[in-house]
Parts: sequence; structure tokens; C-alpha cells
Amino acid sequence: MDQADVERFMKRALRLAARGRGRTSPNPMVGAVIVRDGEVVGTGSHRHWGAPHAEVVAIQEAGKRARGSALFVNLEPCSHHGLTPPCVSAIVESGISRVFASIVDPDPRVDGKGFRFLRRHGVVVDVGALREEALRLNETYLKWVRKKHPFVAIKVCQSLDGRIAASDGQARGLGSAEEIEFAHSLRARYDAVMVGVGTVVIDDPLLTVRRRRGRDPHRIILDSRLSLPLTSRVLEKRGDEKVIVAVINRAPKRKVKALRERGVEVWLLPEKNGRVSLRRLLSKAGKRSIQSILVEGGSEVVTSFLREKLADKLYVAIAPKILGGERSLTWPEEIGVRSVRGAVRLDGLRVKRLGTDVLLEGYL
Amino acid sequence: MDQADVERFMKRALRLAARGRGRTSPNPMVGAVIVRDGEVVGTGSHRHWGAPHAEVVAIQEAGKRARGSALFVNLEPCSHHGLTPPCVSAIVESGISRVFASIVDPDPRVDGKGFRFLRRHGVVVDVGALREEALRLNETYLKWVRKKHPFVAIKVCQSLDGRIAASDGQARGLGSAEEIEFAHSLRARYDAVMVGVGTVVIDDPLLTVRRRRGRDPHRIILDSRLSLPLTSRVLEKRGDEKVIVAVINRAPKRKVKALRERGVEVWLLPEKNGRVSLRRLLSKAGKRSIQSILVEGGSEVVTSFLREKLADKLYVAIAPKILGGERSLTWPEEIGVRSVRGAVRLDGLRVKRLGTDVLLEGYL
Repeated sequence: MDQADVERFMKRALRLAARGRGRTSPNPMVGAVIVRDGEVVGTGSHRHWGAPHAEVVAIQEAGKRARGSALFVNLEPCSHHGLTPPCVSAIVESGISRVFASIVDPDPRVDGKGFRFLRRHGVVVDVGALREEALRLNETYLKWVRKKHPFVAIKVCQSLDGRIAASDGQARGLGSAEEIEFAHSLRARYDAVMVGVGTVVIDDPLLTVRRRRGRDPHRIILDSRLSLPLTSRVLEKRGDEKVIVAVINRAPKRKVKALRERGVEVWLLPEKNGRVSLRRLLSKAGKRSIQSILVEGGSEVVTSFLREKLADKLYVAIAPKILGGERSLTWPEEIGVRSVRGAVRLDGLRVKRLGTDVLLEGYL
Repeated sequence: MDQADVERFMKRALRLAARGRGRTSPNPMVGAVIVRDGEVVGTGSHRHWGAPHAEVVAIQEAGKRARGSALFVNLEPCSHHGLTPPCVSAIVESGISRVFASIVDPDPRVDGKGFRFLRRHGVVVDVGALREEALRLNETYLKWVRKKHPFVAIKVCQSLDGRIAASDGQARGLGSAEEIEFAHSLRARYDAVMVGVGTVVIDDPLLTVRRRRGRDPHRIILDSRLSLPLTSRVLEKRGDEKVIVAVINRAPKRKVKALRERGVEVWLLPEKNGRVSLRRLLSKAGKRSIQSILVEGGSEVVTSFLREKLADKLYVAIAPKILGGERSLTWPEEIGVRSVRGAVRLDGLRVKRLGTDVLLEGYL
């Protein structure tokens, strides 16, 4: 099998993996392709948390034709008993003789043990095909498994001159319809959406997925002193997703109780400079299997994440409009940068059109 | 000849025209291709102001083979005696039987008269092939001919969050090497570069073309009260280009005299709100055959052009860096926009990569 074939089949595995986007957490997205004599005899993807693993689905489809075949999978097959038996046993039993995997699974229960098991049982293992794509696809899972903190992305929509609201305080109409659709599709990808209480008070957002198909994310409201109006729409629980309000320990107890009685989770957290410690918030979210958080604002929350270097990714949608002026809102506030040399840099910049707008994304 | 052929030959004419970029002003950029029996028998471009017109160069190259051929040209051929005899006479004499032109030349001495002359002499004329590209190529010429004002482009280099300098006041290092090269190539395209006196005092720029090949632009310094240090590097005259300082009528006479003695043009202009009237400045520049001006800053000058709606085009280079904070510089200042609905909009947005940076350009 030559390099072009390997990449072609691995690309297909990655596409199959991506079908689970937004639904596999806290599991990774995995796709599997089984090839015998140049022909695809089985495919599978891990469709949602609790569902069978991609490798097992593909092996079932291949049946007896799996014997002597090659398996392409974007992540190391698991070697531990979780909700399902280990994939590596199924691979060996099926008679698959060669495995191409993009990356190691850093989950301490796997982390190379899957590959070792396969090799010990006579399976030839190649690791590294389409590594970059595989790392990117499961970037939220990989961060969470390694650091126990959620992967944090910040999403901003600004004018060409970097304003996030006009001098009248309003932002409505800044992004195009396509930009708004993109924002909703992002929500469907992240486990949780986070905003500050200021955004809730001003915009009263739902933070649900509406313009695109997808499951709603958990909703986290940063509200150190618990000043949230109890009538806020974001508090209305709809499906399985949680509504979480993060407050400091000395927040008003009666209001905490009132929220809890309404089915809202209230997280009492230590303070840092009079506000909820973001680091402790992320620890707690990580422990609760929240693998990824999308921070949608406002400026103060975004600033805190940037200043404390707790964000991993940034999405900036730019509308080709100029607002100007001193009273229009800019972002972020003070993040401790004094000079151009000290600027926070974005790596791996990607540029896309979103209707009339432009999306820039990169890693912090 | 089918549509695909017409577009193919016109594309070649446009490429030939573009060879004169930055050198034909106040003439337009024109390219010509002569085709006989599907074969190109002559090509020409107007290489610089005062040089022969593209049509004549192509006709000379084609010689007798021009008879019965088709001419492709991106602008209506001229019908008046200028520095050179009218192209339409040369076309008719050459025996060219068909002319494809992209657009009408709005110069009142031409403006359809060229086409009428050709048709009267039995030449078949088609107008409109690659119209959009032709309008874009000669956008500065077309504005200047119609309005007698120069075409004004603003060029800004900003951080991702819309800052043009860090809180220490410095901007050096914001744009990538490719972004700086692009800035220099823009200078070679525009007839004049304009900055405010503040930029001269802070940065002491040369405003010449260095990172790319090309002729230096005229340099215009907006300095209402003539506070310019006489030692500024921008005042050093190098080649044929002019150094112009625009001041209000009541600027200090002795300093005006000192500048003039050094070969600097001082334009005394009426005031508007205590500053040089930009509209009057543009009128004067237009009369002096300055067809295009590139405004490079600072924020105050850019703000004035936007507020008075005197700019035609905007180039915004975005470096993927975040500066944040209240003391970093933003642009523009107050331009009279209160709400998102009232924002200044950019049309025809184009997006390009400039090394690690991104360039957004569009029309105001």
C-alpha cells in the first residue's frame, strides 16, 4: 500500500470520525475503515457517547473479510474495558493484520498500550498518517485527557475596526446571517457555552442551537456575586443539558437556593481578585466531563481568559463595517500587554468567508 | 469568435495594461491585443506617461497582418489629439475590422466618440468584455476623470483586536515582512502618499518605495499649523516626485518661505473646523494631475477622511496578535456612527494572505 492510498483511506476514517462531532464527548471522535485488497470492506464511526466504537462497527460490517485486511483509524484503538470491551481484542480476533493509526490516545488507560497489545499479537502497526488533521479533529478531547481542564475557545464578532458594539451599546446586526449560523454551529460542537452575567442582563440570550441542527450545549454563566435576574431566558432548562451558574462562595445563599430549586446547578467557587477563579472553574468543569467550553463574551470575561492565559483557541468573525469612536466597545480590556513585542500571538491562523464576513481562527 | 476566446484575449490585454501600473498617471493603463484567424499578431501596452498608446504599439507590431483582424483593448481608444495622434485613426487605417473594448473612457474628449468614429468607418465595435476587471484596473483614473478629485485609499495595519499601536505608543513590528512589502508596493501604485504631521513627528518616515521596485510617490503632509520639524526625513527630495505640505492660509509665513526655499511645495488652503479643508486639498491635488492618494495615517487623518466620506477604498492588514487595553491606539476616532445600522460599510470585500497576516480590502 503506498502513501497516497494510506492518506486516502485515513482521510475517509477522519470524515467518518467527524460524524460524531458534538455527540461523542467525553469520548473522542473516531472513524474506522477496513481495506482488503484495495477494497473497502467495512466502515464505522463512533456516533455518540455510549454507542459502539468505530472499530467494532467496521469489523462487524467486514465480517469474515476482515481476515488479512488493514484497518485505518484516526486514534489508537482502546485497550481497556469501558462501556464496551477493548477494541484491540476485537481487532486481533477479526484477523486484521495491519493497523494504520494517526495518533496515540493519551488517555492513561490507553497511551500506547493499545499499540503494544496489537504488536504482541502479530499485528503490524503504523502510527502517524494525517497526524495534524487527527490532532485538530480531537483537539478538545486531547486537551481534556491530558490536562483535565476543558479546551476553551473564545468567539468574538467585531467590526473591521475591532469594535464589538456601537456607541449605543448594541451589537445586533453586526454579523451576517452566515456568521450567526456559524456561531450556532459552534455551540453544537462545544460541550458548554459560557457568558458573563453582563451579557445575560443586556442581551438575555438563550445560548441554544437554533440556526443549525445539533444538540444544545450546557450553559455556564459567570456571575461572581449572583446578580442574575431569575427571569433570564438562559435559565430555562430545555433538554438534558445543564444550566450552571458559577458564583463565589460568599454569594447570597437565598438566591443560590432559589436557583437550585429551579434545577439550575450553582457552583460555589473560590475567588480570585473578588471574582470566580477561572482556573478552579475549569478544574471543576473538567471533573464533570465538560471537555470543551465556548466563551461567547462579554469583553470582561474574554479579557479574564486572555489575561490568565486559559484560552486555547480564538474565533474572530469580522464584519466589513466601520464603527469608530471612543464610546463603541472594544475587546479585550487590559491583558497585560505593553508593547507589540509582548502581544498575545495567534498560531495556525485560518481564514474563511462567512457570507459577507470573514472568519479568522487560530490557537493561543 | 466565441465568448471564451473574447475573454481570453481581453484577459491578456488587461495583463499588458497592468504593466504600466504606477507609471501611466494621469493617463490610464491600457493594453491591446490584435488577433487574426485566432492567432495573436500584435500586442502593446502603454508603458508610461508620454509613451505611445497600447493600440499603436500593437498595430505597429502587427503591420499588414492587422488588416481584417480584431483588436482587444481594455478601454475605449482615444479620439483626440493629445501627446500622440488619436488611436481611432490608426485603427481605421490599419484595416482592423472589429474592436472589443471593456469600457467607455469617461474623459470628456473621448466618452463614446472613439466608438462612434470607429463605427462610422465600418469597424464593428463590442463593448463590455471583462468590464468589472477593467473598471477595477483603472479605478483611480476613472474616478479622477469623472470627479476631478483623486481616488483616495486608506491603508491601516492593525492587530486582530483593532489596535494600531501598543500602549507604549509604538507600532513597529506589528505587520509581517510581507505586509511591509505590500505597503511599499502600494506606494509605487499610488501617485501620492499622505500622512498627518503627527506621524511625521513620531515615526519620521521616508514614505518612499524600498522593499519593492517602483517609482516613489509624491509625498503630502497634512500640517494645518505647520509644526513640521524642518529636519524631517520626509522633506528630503530625492527624485522627480514632489514633497507637498498642506497648511491653512494663516500658517506661519516665515516657515512657509523656509520650506519653499528648500524645494518643498507648500499649499495654502482654506480651513474647515480649524484644519485644512480636505475637500479643497483634493480639488487642488486633482487639478495638479494627482490621480490617486494613499493615506497612511495617523488615526486623526484617517478619521477625517472617513467622517467626511472622502475615501474610496480601504486596505486593512490584520496581524494575528492581540494587544488589548485602553491605552493602545484604536482607529478611527469619532466618525459620526451611533449604531450598527449606521456603520460605514465596505463593498466588494477581498481577502488575501500577506505572510502570517491577512489583508482585507474593499470600497467605501
